[in-house]
Amino acid sequence: MKKLLRNIAENISVAVNENMGNPDIGKTVRDGADGSPTKRIDDIAEKAALETIKKSHKKVNFLSEEIGFIDNNAEKTIVLDPVDGTFNAVHGIPFYSVSVALGTKKLSDIEYGLVKNLVNNDVFEAEKNNGSFLNGKRIKTKSFDEKNPVFSVYLGRRALSKSFEIAKKARRVRSMGCASLDLCLVASSSTDLYYQFGVPLRVTDIAAGVLILREAGGEIYDENKRILDMGLNLKERKNFVAVGDKKYLEMIK
Amino acid sequence: MKKLLRNIAENISVAVNENMGNPDIGKTVRDGADGSPTKRIDDIAEKAALETIKKSHKKVNFLSEEIGFIDNNAEKTIVLDPVDGTFNAVHGIPFYSVSVALGTKKLSDIEYGLVKNLVNNDVFEAEKNNGSFLNGKRIKTKSFDEKNPVFSVYLGRRALSKSFEIAKKARRVRSMGCASLDLCLVASSSTDLYYQFGVPLRVTDIAAGVLILREAGGEIYDENKRILDMGLNLKERKNFVAVGDKKYLEMIK
Repeated sequence: MKKLLRNIAENISVAVNENMGNPDIGKTVRDGADGSPTKRIDDIAEKAALETIKKSHKKVNFLSEEIGFIDNNAEKTIVLDPVDGTFNAVHGIPFYSVSVALGTKKLSDIEYGLVKNLVNNDVFEAEKNNGSFLNGKRIKTKSFDEKNPVFSVYLGRRALSKSFEIAKKARRVRSMGCASLDLCLVASSSTDLYYQFGVPLRVTDIAAGVLILREAGGEIYDENKRILDMGLNLKERKNFVAVGDKKYLEMIK
Repeated sequence: MKKLLRNIAENISVAVNENMGNPDIGKTVRDGADGSPTKRIDDIAEKAALETIKKSHKKVNFLSEEIGFIDNNAEKTIVLDPVDGTFNAVHGIPFYSVSVALGTKKLSDIEYGLVKNLVNNDVFEAEKNNGSFLNGKRIKTKSFDEKNPVFSVYLGRRALSKSFEIAKKARRVRSMGCASLDLCLVASSSTDLYYQFGVPLRVTDIAAGVLILREAGGEIYDENKRILDMGLNLKERKNFVAVGDKKYLEMIK
């Protein structure tokens, strides 16, 4: 099954890159199952995934941002965001990805996750209880550094006042606009924390990234400060904070 | 001379990419002429530039972040940031560039500028009075869009309160940590505004990006709301706001 998920990421990567020069990739083709408009590039990517699954003849369910849940009466479900960071992809900001994971019922039972940066082809990968890898090399989160914290924070009109307060505490702030890669940056010690409040996200955005973060030594919490969990569906949306070292939770209290 | 600057960018690109996997690229090798520590990757990139100039046998002065000003008693000066976004480059955040420009005395007489994204190889280029180009295709700034402004803002401990207020007004915020590319993103309509206050920058960071922005239809202002200018030296540092459409200046007053 791992091979199938890798093939999905690879085939999406090819399809997206073939179409990147195309001026209409940002056109809305319909409303997606998650309620937000499906752009042509999302549609192209999702179709590449569906085609890959079909050709594999594997029995598996499928949950994706655009098409929703396809129940094939299988035990396992592939959880996909065909293009995470669609705004970036469509507007020439070179930071977007495909995120694909395999699970059963909920985020906490995700057993495999892969996030591929579609710009530079970095592949972040994790298998439950087996660690996290970037391009085949083991990654770990960074330990607490009070002096020079680097925080990734969702900001703008819809962010909370608290989000701005947290951004003020960081030595450096990044706001990159691609949740799955933002989680991977915490996992690989590029950043220390990722704060996403105000625009709660769906499991499709984060399923792979959360496993990659946890297997690298980090953790992710919901707005009640509980360890984040959610079902494999498009209904639930969650605010969260992801940290490489739990000591950052004190710092942002 | 344009060919020389293109060669500098190309040779830096090769040298940086050859060394990216190297674990010691983030080590400090000495203090640079600009007062900040020179990292190994900066040093490698600057040496590639110096080598390229030497081989060309062109008579030209050279101003660069690490080595400072080399006065060859020439009329023109090459203004270089060998790696812009060194923190990103060293910490695995895939957004950094080389910025190289040609001028005489000051920012406003820069006649050619080139910014190359060292991750995806995008090349932004402008010649005075001849427009701006991304990979050979003409680019223009976006016109005012009150509803969905995308602002690039420098944030963190050293940013101004005003920076956070401006970030609150945007529909989307990006904070990417590479000034030359941040200017190019405004030039190419990816973002609408770039606000850099609190950590003022040097001419080496922005010489190419400012020409690319202006030739694409945008403008850049200093903290006194005057059109930004500065000498070709490492002493001056400026806060600034760059806009694709002047109407954004009203919005952030």
